[in-house]
Amino acid sequence: MAFFADIMGTLFERRPGKAAAPSRAPMAALCDGLLSAQGEVSGMRLARDILQRYRTMSADEKRGFFEHLAEALDVDSAKVIAAAERYAAKRDAASYGELSREAEPPRQELLRRLNQAPGGTEELVQMRLDLLQMEPSPALQRIDLDFAHLFGSWFNRGFLVLRHIDWRTPANILEKIIQYEAVHAIDDWDDLQRRLRPSDRRCFAFFHPAMPEEPLIFVEVALCHGIPGSVQRLLAEGREPVPDAEIDTAVFYSISNCQEGLRGISFGNSLIKQVVDELRRDLPQVKTFVTLSPVPGLSRHLKAIAKDRPEAAALLAAAATGDPEALGPHLAALRSLTAEFLLTAKRPDGMPADPVARFHLGNGALLHDVHALADTSANGLRQSCSAMVNYLYDLAKVERNNENFVTGKTVAAAKSVQALLPQGASTGRKP
Amino acid sequence: MAFFADIMGTLFERRPGKAAAPSRAPMAALCDGLLSAQGEVSGMRLARDILQRYRTMSADEKRGFFEHLAEALDVDSAKVIAAAERYAAKRDAASYGELSREAEPPRQELLRRLNQAPGGTEELVQMRLDLLQMEPSPALQRIDLDFAHLFGSWFNRGFLVLRHIDWRTPANILEKIIQYEAVHAIDDWDDLQRRLRPSDRRCFAFFHPAMPEEPLIFVEVALCHGIPGSVQRLLAEGREPVPDAEIDTAVFYSISNCQEGLRGISFGNSLIKQVVDELRRDLPQVKTFVTLSPVPGLSRHLKAIAKDRPEAAALLAAAATGDPEALGPHLAALRSLTAEFLLTAKRPDGMPADPVARFHLGNGALLHDVHALADTSANGLRQSCSAMVNYLYDLAKVERNNENFVTGKTVAAAKSVQALLPQGASTGRKP
Amino acid sequence: MAFFADIMGTLFERRPGKAAAPSRAPMAALCDGLLSAQGEVSGMRLARDILQRYRTMSADEKRGFFEHLAEALDVDSAKVIAAAERYAAKRDAASYGELSREAEPPRQELLRRLNQAPGGTEELVQMRLDLLQMEPSPALQRIDLDFAHLFGSWFNRGFLVLRHIDWRTPANILEKIIQYEAVHAIDDWDDLQRRLRPSDRRCFAFFHPAMPEEPLIFVEVALCHGIPGSVQRLLAEGREPVPDAEIDTAVFYSISNCQEGLRGISFGNSLIKQVVDELRRDLPQVKTFVTLSPVPGLSRHLKAIAKDRPEAAALLAAAATGDPEALGPHLAALRSLTAEFLLTAKRPDGMPADPVARFHLGNGALLHDVHALADTSANGLRQSCSAMVNYLYDLAKVERNNENFVTGKTVAAAKSVQALLPQGASTGRKP
Amino acid sequence: MAFFADIMGTLFERRPGKAAAPSRAPMAALCDGLLSAQGEVSGMRLARDILQRYRTMSADEKRGFFEHLAEALDVDSAKVIAAAERYAAKRDAASYGELSREAEPPRQELLRRLNQAPGGTEELVQMRLDLLQMEPSPALQRIDLDFAHLFGSWFNRGFLVLRHIDWRTPANILEKIIQYEAVHAIDDWDDLQRRLRPSDRRCFAFFHPAMPEEPLIFVEVALCHGIPGSVQRLLAEGREPVPDAEIDTAVFYSISNCQEGLRGISFGNSLIKQVVDELRRDLPQVKTFVTLSPVPGLSRHLKAIAKDRPEAAALLAAAATGDPEALGPHLAALRSLTAEFLLTAKRPDGMPADPVARFHLGNGALLHDVHALADTSANGLRQSCSAMVNYLYDLAKVERNNENFVTGKTVAAAKSVQALLPQGASTGRKP
Repeated sequence: MAFFADIMGTLFERRPGKAAAPSRAPMAALCDGLLSAQGEVSGMRLARDILQRYRTMSADEKRGFFEHLAEALDVDSAKVIAAAERYAAKRDAASYGELSREAEPPRQELLRRLNQAPGGTEELVQMRLDLLQMEPSPALQRIDLDFAHLFGSWFNRGFLVLRHIDWRTPANILEKIIQYEAVHAIDDWDDLQRRLRPSDRRCFAFFHPAMPEEPLIFVEVALCHGIPGSVQRLLAEGREPVPDAEIDTAVFYSISNCQEGLRGISFGNSLIKQVVDELRRDLPQVKTFVTLSPVPGLSRHLKAIAKDRPEAAALLAAAATGDPEALGPHLAALRSLTAEFLLTAKRPDGMPADPVARFHLGNGALLHDVHALADTSANGLRQSCSAMVNYLYDLAKVERNNENFVTGKTVAAAKSVQALLPQGASTGRKP
Repeated sequence: MAFFADIMGTLFERRPGKAAAPSRAPMAALCDGLLSAQGEVSGMRLARDILQRYRTMSADEKRGFFEHLAEALDVDSAKVIAAAERYAAKRDAASYGELSREAEPPRQELLRRLNQAPGGTEELVQMRLDLLQMEPSPALQRIDLDFAHLFGSWFNRGFLVLRHIDWRTPANILEKIIQYEAVHAIDDWDDLQRRLRPSDRRCFAFFHPAMPEEPLIFVEVALCHGIPGSVQRLLAEGREPVPDAEIDTAVFYSISNCQEGLRGISFGNSLIKQVVDELRRDLPQVKTFVTLSPVPGLSRHLKAIAKDRPEAAALLAAAATGDPEALGPHLAALRSLTAEFLLTAKRPDGMPADPVARFHLGNGALLHDVHALADTSANGLRQSCSAMVNYLYDLAKVERNNENFVTGKTVAAAKSVQALLPQGASTGRKP
Repeated sequence: MAFFADIMGTLFERRPGKAAAPSRAPMAALCDGLLSAQGEVSGMRLARDILQRYRTMSADEKRGFFEHLAEALDVDSAKVIAAAERYAAKRDAASYGELSREAEPPRQELLRRLNQAPGGTEELVQMRLDLLQMEPSPALQRIDLDFAHLFGSWFNRGFLVLRHIDWRTPANILEKIIQYEAVHAIDDWDDLQRRLRPSDRRCFAFFHPAMPEEPLIFVEVALCHGIPGSVQRLLAEGREPVPDAEIDTAVFYSISNCQEGLRGISFGNSLIKQVVDELRRDLPQVKTFVTLSPVPGLSRHLKAIAKDRPEAAALLAAAATGDPEALGPHLAALRSLTAEFLLTAKRPDGMPADPVARFHLGNGALLHDVHALADTSANGLRQSCSAMVNYLYDLAKVERNNENFVTGKTVAAAKSVQALLPQGASTGRKP
Repeated sequence: MAFFADIMGTLFERRPGKAAAPSRAPMAALCDGLLSAQGEVSGMRLARDILQRYRTMSADEKRGFFEHLAEALDVDSAKVIAAAERYAAKRDAASYGELSREAEPPRQELLRRLNQAPGGTEELVQMRLDLLQMEPSPALQRIDLDFAHLFGSWFNRGFLVLRHIDWRTPANILEKIIQYEAVHAIDDWDDLQRRLRPSDRRCFAFFHPAMPEEPLIFVEVALCHGIPGSVQRLLAEGREPVPDAEIDTAVFYSISNCQEGLRGISFGNSLIKQVVDELRRDLPQVKTFVTLSPVPGLSRHLKAIAKDRPEAAALLAAAATGDPEALGPHLAALRSLTAEFLLTAKRPDGMPADPVARFHLGNGALLHDVHALADTSANGLRQSCSAMVNYLYDLAKVERNNENFVTGKTVAAAKSVQALLPQGASTGRKP
């Protein structure tokens, strides 16, 4: 029992500076201790010790820790089979409970107990990020499934909180908005101010109560008169805000996931839905909800087809000059090739090749328009030869679009976009 | 696809008064729809519909719904066995993922998706309360295990928030404190005020962020000079608050669980631990942390032994008069029998028979003193012939006590309490 | 300098329990010390000492303190005259400054400095309440003008904060709503809940930031379908809330000033105005804003005219039975006499005799209807033989009504109310 | 009455975008209207109109507006004299009230009524700033006294709120901290972060509830081990925070007034006092409270004496090189001359010539040490040849120091500082 006495240390201590020295027992013993701890009192202390130890580990030690989770704290297939057989025979609560216990690896309970430590949730998200960044192995991939399962339950939509982000938001949150913006980089605090402060700009983020200073995902919105076709004009320095009375359109021009450690836990369509709700309430004059979205896979696609399609090769060459002017002769081709890419290029499973398209079409949006010279930044030229597109959230059609997309893999697109297609291109629609 | 189109209704609607009429599809179909919904958009609407439908069900219909969960959405033992065999052979992530999926019944995912509806968490807790109040059956007991598993993960200590409860707390919360007090009933708002407002009283509660207006558990604390031996004196109307300078003891005189639907999810020892932390920070002069606790199983125990123990029979007879004065000649016997009960009466597993004793001893507290005439209310006379006890949270000994209790089932008790035992009574200690 | 050293005590001390013992210097010396204190450091300590001393004074000592303010800290007329003459001659800033200083009695600066103590504002309001409750004298009446002047500046409309009061409001605020309700007494917490919790009820209060736990004035609002004519029906136990879709009228049925110590500082019409703004924003379907108001001066008026007006005598006799049924034969007379009272009974200055009428007509409202059997409580029968009236806030006419009332003393009234007048009664309107 | 009808416009309108068009009546007529408005309803609308009009005025028009206040809304000396004579004779409340009314110019009431408009307080502070920036005249100086009087009452210490400023503070507040820092300029958000985020830094500000987004004054604090002698080392990029356990000293290294429009309303010593209170509570290990203060008048003083004092001339020449190294041979002279300046250079009224010295000595601090090369920034070299000093807030002596300073104009200084004086320099102390 010396081990137990050791690791419990001075109970009831938590304030900084006063905490008992953490245990020096081996990590595996600490984990066993935490799993067998009866009282939450000792559990919380052990959880903190383990997380503290983890933080100071080398990459190799962390890998060792993960492998320990994967092997020593795995399910025992033989016991699962025995329990499943008993349950099949008896169908009572006791045998069902036994099956549930046997089929869940002890590492899941370990992770739940680690979460009891102050700040535990954030540390577990960081722990998974470490895991994702390691060279994959079957063992590591298996425990990643446990992280994903647990996070999916904990970061359930019902537990998330939507918050306005504006120039009154605490600086430590805003700092993270700068850091996490993944679509159109925010250069500095002045740039951030241009996106948050004008009367025609909005920003919304989801937070989890256990990580109140860490946004999970955020979307930036521009209120416009009409649907815009250039992100540079949208974000121009020195532009005048659109007067309230002229606003009729809300443009989602950037949506960024913040927590790489929550990969696979999807927040995006909940966020867009709830933001549409908020905007409709506050700004009844807004009738159109639309994105201004990148086409990140376009240039890659064009390269793949360039040898058969001289207009794609010419376009890529023009974009490679880095000079938007050079694109002048290729604008019609650019719009046509973009429409073709989004309407016809597919993954093996029949879904669109472009991830942004999959996201918005999967939400029930419709491909509304295609713009050349819409993102003339270096990145825009490189990834999509300056093309951007609008996905339209038409509330009356969102449900039908979603159904058609999920069941028939049909890409909803405006007639004008379909008309951009070269003669004979197949949209995947049945005749 | 008509079903899908039907149940999705008007998307993006959520405000009261504007919501689309809920679907009239059968409940089982709604559940299948929710489990197969791809987008969170349609999922949230289905979740709301199902919860709304559930609320209006009769008891029989609810039982039918639970049985549907238990049978139609159960694990398939054969598939579990097959998956476990594959995993035993391959040990890769794909087979592990398959085993995890097969071993978790679809109803757990259904409950997680129901939680996405606004207010879903609270409704699920209520749903389990309905379940617990039904005549048990193996089917119902099985799904109760799923609720318990899910709630254990969601109401993880790391997600709970401690809040001071005082006379500045919103009335809708205070109303629930009145309603949920389970140990010493709060008569009305004046009585509540006497427990919250004086400078020598404190109250703390745990909340979950998804149920911000529902306390989960709360503890009432009296700050005292010395350790009290009567709850009536502690709560007397018109008493004077103890001056700050004289306070040296914090007495936990009532701890109440609020959510019957969270039965089995334990918050108590976390709460006591964190409250001790808070009090030590704010009131460094407090050196003693002690309870004034009921002995709910005492009278029942005395009845069981009365035929062999005339002093127990006499005591019960005196208490049955309802007149505390009648207990006068029996006070020594009462204290002795109480000590004997707490130190020697055991459940079959060797743990103390009294549930309050199990709770505090399991937290590492020590049985410090036994008081006669400590609760002279009708309830106090009935359940324990007026006896109450103090459990002491001695921070230097809590860890050793906890270890001894868990491993050796030893009841930690002050020498003075042990001395109350009749000669020859066995405390379960080894000689 | 010993005095100064004494009264400054241990500087920088403020926490409870650690404060230096307050000075035992005479109150007049403390006041002189505070007025001559250079630093705010010593000033704040002196202010606290004076307020603490004041609290423990007997009524006679308080009167002595007020007389000291009135005489020793008065303006010096001779100096004012001299300064005014110099200013008339020189018209420069120095002479203007001197005149300002001489014309303001030092007690005003003393009150401002007392306000620096923690909680000072609330204590000064209480101090004036003490003053108002004393037997008046010219000295006391003079300093009351100083309190009124200062409070008028401090409790400026621009510094007040409007807050919703509902069942989520902290209990210590709600307790004061119960206590301060002056029109229709709130019996207990259950009664309060009936006024705050239903979906068709609202309550709003003004607060001052320096007294955040003390409402200054509040108004209770019932949302109705149509204009009600009975306060008992409005407040009936067990009534069903009006469904949102049927609401078209907001009824201000009670408005209560809370701080007697702020007598003469008017908040009422600001409050009504801002509440109308709030309600129009949140409930656009509400088109009618109306009061259900008492007629507190009616019975007194009827007694005065009873010997010449047999119908008034009969009405009073019926009301005196305390049985609303007894009023049956007198309802027409009651409505007619109420209209007559409100339209024709005047103060010497030509304003309506009834204070509630002066308040609402002065805000630009119109006397819209007269109801018999509208308040059948004991108080209602006593003060107005059960009559109540509606004042209508018709936004399109409020400005003209206000102007006519202020300049021509004209009582705006609906035609139907005018028609209630006996033939030949003069409404004060020009022919 | 057409004027009145016109200016009242559509009552009850306040929301942006819906407000009635503001009145086009002349400003003087608007002011008369506001002063004669009976109801607050019309008053608030008029107040808003006047402020709106004011904002769009040219500088000349603003001057005209101020002159209107100064002349047309001035006190009438003859009436003051008559009222004062009546009051001297009658000593009753009526005559006292009349005197009070006559002696206060109507413009003060006008300013109070302007304050009722939303945002009025902030606009009035801005209005006074305009006034202070104009070419002075007796008329303008007179009304500045009215502003100062009113602001002194409104910004009473008892109405101010202390707030921690840190990296969690809203960005719109932090932006103002950058803008208002007057002592050691904050370069950008990174620099700000270095002052707010480390564990050994604190910042506190006073706010007024009617201007919640405008700090009034703020102080920056460095927690140190020992008393520092160089602001560059204190603020160095890349420095390590002092560990909690080593902290024993709190250094107020910058205190900045934010609102030029509140000139003459002093918040500084209240702020320091309250911050000392806060720090003592949170960090009991801090025993020393000290400033690191500039000596802004030093170089000017040295220039004045340079022709008689060759060491001053040499020092100035070295500082003028802009190279701190050049000061090497002059460090002893610099310390000696700084001590001499602070201890012996006086204003005509006998108070120290240096404003920072007056501030801290007036608060009861003691001149504790003098440092050369303490501020080697361009500004530091220019204004004080790099010298800075520590003023010590020794709680046991603050009261005596304050008394001696106020009454005897004695500069409290450590022996070691006095020893820096050249032989024969007079400190103003009596022998």
